[in-house]
Amino acid sequence: MKIVIIGGVAGGASCAARLRRIDEAAEIVMIERGPYVSYANCGLPYHVGGVIEDEASLLIANPQLFRDQFAIDVRISTEATAIDAKAKTVTVRDLATGAERAETYDKLVLAPGATSIKPPLPGIDLPGIFHVRTVPDARAIRHWLGANPKGKRAVVIGGGFIGLEMVENLVHQDLAVTLVEMADQILAPLDVEQARPAEALLRRHGVTLVLGDSVTGFVKNPSGAIDVATKSGATYPADIVILALGVRPDTALAKSAGLTLGDRGGIKVDAHMRTSDPAIYAVGDAVEVRDIVTDADTLLALAGPANRQGRIAADNIAGRTSVFRGVQGTAIIGLFGTTFAWTGASEKTLRRLGRTAYEKIYLYPNHHARYYPGAKMISMKLIFAKSDGRILGAQAYGEDGVDRRIDVIATLIQKGGTVYDLEEAELCYAPQYGSAKDAANFAGMIAANVLRKDMPLVHWNAGNTSLLLDVRDPAEIEAYAVPGALNIPLKQLRARLAEVPRDREIAVICRSGQRAYLATRILLQNGYAAKTLSGGVLAVQQSET
Amino acid sequence: MKIVIIGGVAGGASCAARLRRIDEAAEIVMIERGPYVSYANCGLPYHVGGVIEDEASLLIANPQLFRDQFAIDVRISTEATAIDAKAKTVTVRDLATGAERAETYDKLVLAPGATSIKPPLPGIDLPGIFHVRTVPDARAIRHWLGANPKGKRAVVIGGGFIGLEMVENLVHQDLAVTLVEMADQILAPLDVEQARPAEALLRRHGVTLVLGDSVTGFVKNPSGAIDVATKSGATYPADIVILALGVRPDTALAKSAGLTLGDRGGIKVDAHMRTSDPAIYAVGDAVEVRDIVTDADTLLALAGPANRQGRIAADNIAGRTSVFRGVQGTAIIGLFGTTFAWTGASEKTLRRLGRTAYEKIYLYPNHHARYYPGAKMISMKLIFAKSDGRILGAQAYGEDGVDRRIDVIATLIQKGGTVYDLEEAELCYAPQYGSAKDAANFAGMIAANVLRKDMPLVHWNAGNTSLLLDVRDPAEIEAYAVPGALNIPLKQLRARLAEVPRDREIAVICRSGQRAYLATRILLQNGYAAKTLSGGVLAVQQSET
Repeated sequence: MKIVIIGGVAGGASCAARLRRIDEAAEIVMIERGPYVSYANCGLPYHVGGVIEDEASLLIANPQLFRDQFAIDVRISTEATAIDAKAKTVTVRDLATGAERAETYDKLVLAPGATSIKPPLPGIDLPGIFHVRTVPDARAIRHWLGANPKGKRAVVIGGGFIGLEMVENLVHQDLAVTLVEMADQILAPLDVEQARPAEALLRRHGVTLVLGDSVTGFVKNPSGAIDVATKSGATYPADIVILALGVRPDTALAKSAGLTLGDRGGIKVDAHMRTSDPAIYAVGDAVEVRDIVTDADTLLALAGPANRQGRIAADNIAGRTSVFRGVQGTAIIGLFGTTFAWTGASEKTLRRLGRTAYEKIYLYPNHHARYYPGAKMISMKLIFAKSDGRILGAQAYGEDGVDRRIDVIATLIQKGGTVYDLEEAELCYAPQYGSAKDAANFAGMIAANVLRKDMPLVHWNAGNTSLLLDVRDPAEIEAYAVPGALNIPLKQLRARLAEVPRDREIAVICRSGQRAYLATRILLQNGYAAKTLSGGVLAVQQSET
Repeated sequence: MKIVIIGGVAGGASCAARLRRIDEAAEIVMIERGPYVSYANCGLPYHVGGVIEDEASLLIANPQLFRDQFAIDVRISTEATAIDAKAKTVTVRDLATGAERAETYDKLVLAPGATSIKPPLPGIDLPGIFHVRTVPDARAIRHWLGANPKGKRAVVIGGGFIGLEMVENLVHQDLAVTLVEMADQILAPLDVEQARPAEALLRRHGVTLVLGDSVTGFVKNPSGAIDVATKSGATYPADIVILALGVRPDTALAKSAGLTLGDRGGIKVDAHMRTSDPAIYAVGDAVEVRDIVTDADTLLALAGPANRQGRIAADNIAGRTSVFRGVQGTAIIGLFGTTFAWTGASEKTLRRLGRTAYEKIYLYPNHHARYYPGAKMISMKLIFAKSDGRILGAQAYGEDGVDRRIDVIATLIQKGGTVYDLEEAELCYAPQYGSAKDAANFAGMIAANVLRKDMPLVHWNAGNTSLLLDVRDPAEIEAYAVPGALNIPLKQLRARLAEVPRDREIAVICRSGQRAYLATRILLQNGYAAKTLSGGVLAVQQSET
């Protein structure tokens, strides 16, 4: 059996290696357009920034290793240009010589990845404008920065992972960075109130943030720099421009083979990673995948799922039945010492899909015991089904311990877990690592309190007309007052109940929601229509950053 | 309804607070023998070591807070001495005045905790010998250290959590520390080969380790120091002695009430935390709990489960049906910058219970992408059911990221997850946080390979008589040779297959197991009886530390 794999990075390389492990006799050909296979494109921004100084360390494997360890015929700098699905041949061109030949296959695996979006804007090919998708891209940027040591102004276009990682790495190299993002927020997978703190963080590190504006063109100005013009009429001069507008599935080959594409523009595959042609599989950034939370088809350009898909395609090609369970969109990014991570569905995704039977909570627990020095706050949002408490998604940020809590929640989502599971999770606890009630447990406990109707919730900015009852102590209120709130410290509430009007719904607020919950319990049991303002003053402040 | 709660730390305090939140009308009395409620006993060693400098920060809550926020009648320095279950009264004694009175109850909650084991050894009450169980204990040790600045020799007895945390904190204060442990390993919940590296770590930090020896008595020597004598006949002079021999459930009160105790010596409770007397509940270190992995009754003196139990007892007392799901023994300890953590059952526990239908793997992945600076190795052992791959337990150590991987596995154990779930987990990945194939995924992938029979396993020191085939490169073998091994580098294996004898079972070894797996695949598909040595040279070296 001869298997041809188009693409030699995450999904393709994983597929090739797995195939060989299962089938020592198969003929395996791996074709890669670029000069490298199996390289760490997630590390490119850090190579530009000098954190990863040695380019060679980005090369996880090389063609020789694939030949030596896996007896795989690797052809780099070779492009697949067309597929004849009927004849089971793929046309490949040697990019050095231009020579073309037809490669036959029994099974074909498409792992072409995604291509960086490059809109046809005037001037987009000017020198000094770069993508960050491949090792040569990163090398070119490093070279440009080295050759233009006085060019200290960068414009980064696009506020996704790569854009933001580039922003940080350019700031660390003392460039004055402007970030232009078309949407009204950065980090599109996050709900807007969870993205706002990331925006504030960028501004604190001197980044000029341009939201809700899009680039219309690039002009070389008399000084030799590039003027970046935007729709709003503004111009941002730049010595270097980074294009990070996102990626789209590379489906050119798939189209040439007449394969079915999905609604989101990716290659359509079944759970075995098989395309509409039974001899052709597809994996990685080019395919549409099922989101296990929403059950909707989606695109997710992440290395982890690509690797899993590559292995699963290999299994099925080798005659084993193996199923891809879908994706849940777990992701993480570090920005100036703060980690932002998430998993599952966002509120805006749920709303877009009309799935409104969810509830959400905000909380601000410490990453380890408060009594142990160095405790950092984790800001969390948890989204869960109103009906049965199934966890739908979580978004968190903080200086420490964020990855761990999101991974716990991701694992629960994978297993269909609920907020009741989360409150009962038995996690690592010693004071320098967590709390007896871990941050993740707190999320579960609060959510379960809501579902058990012990804690009716209200959210800030949800247009509520309740009377705000602030149960913090006077010193806290002096530091930050909530306009229009009635102030009764929690410890006086039982004695001063008569001061709370009975004819209105009461929304109780405190610093983070904990004391408000206690006050809500007192009020509810005394016949008041009381609700807790989720996340308290911290949520209010977050939404106002 | 009047509820009396005996014990005001983790389980008791959680129960009291939860009860009030559910039932604003109940009369709640909380009785605590010591001078403090709700204090952080997990922080005591760090207070002794000065990491937590301020004693007040250990006091999570105080009686006034319980009165103000929860309207709970807290009585500190008050001991419950007997229960009359028929009359539903508990005798309480004011430790300051000695006055006794009978307190009636409708429901009684026992949260007396566990007491430090203090064997009746000669000299055990000498000045300079301390427990580390309460805030006054820690204060006394700090005072002693301050008053004896020249006393630089410490003997710590017991190599469990508290003993080891005390060792570290005393070393950090420049004491020469000897640790005496009766068993042949420290950290009893770990399998011995996973504990050995912790022992080596202590030795590297100058600790004198005495294993397999027990203390027989203490004598004040002429210099004023204490001679600690052991069974083997050795004597260890000490200026301070820390007793950390573990704890046993405090069941005196339960016995006075005629409550049923379990085989392990703890108070027997049902899943609702109810004792054999329907009016009496018990929670925390004093009770026996069900281990969800082994289904056996066990004792587990940890704050997290105690808190959960307190809340569940409160629910049931208040008329809500709430069930404690049992424990899995997730735990963590930091030692000199290395973290040791585990969850679920150990191999020795499984063997003790006769549950031998398990398999285990060793692996040594990086905590984040190798290509990003600062990657640290995590040493992992994963134990899983041979039949269906259910994860039974995991033990790991390393300098970073250990808590996170153990928490992921703990969460899967909670949900009955398998190694197949683990290999498919979608976890946070960016190069400074993890790998596209995370350390946890690797554990799942390797285990799944074993169960799918792609990778027959052999373990070091398992008395195997296979021919060892070392597939590392010559430079690696020069640095560390495996005695008696045939050496063929992986990349030459296909060409040199004829050199591998066909009449013997082949055990393939490499550095960590990855190349050995590839070689095993080649050999198996060429008709050899090949197995992979799990964990490779790293596992060999670990077992020989």
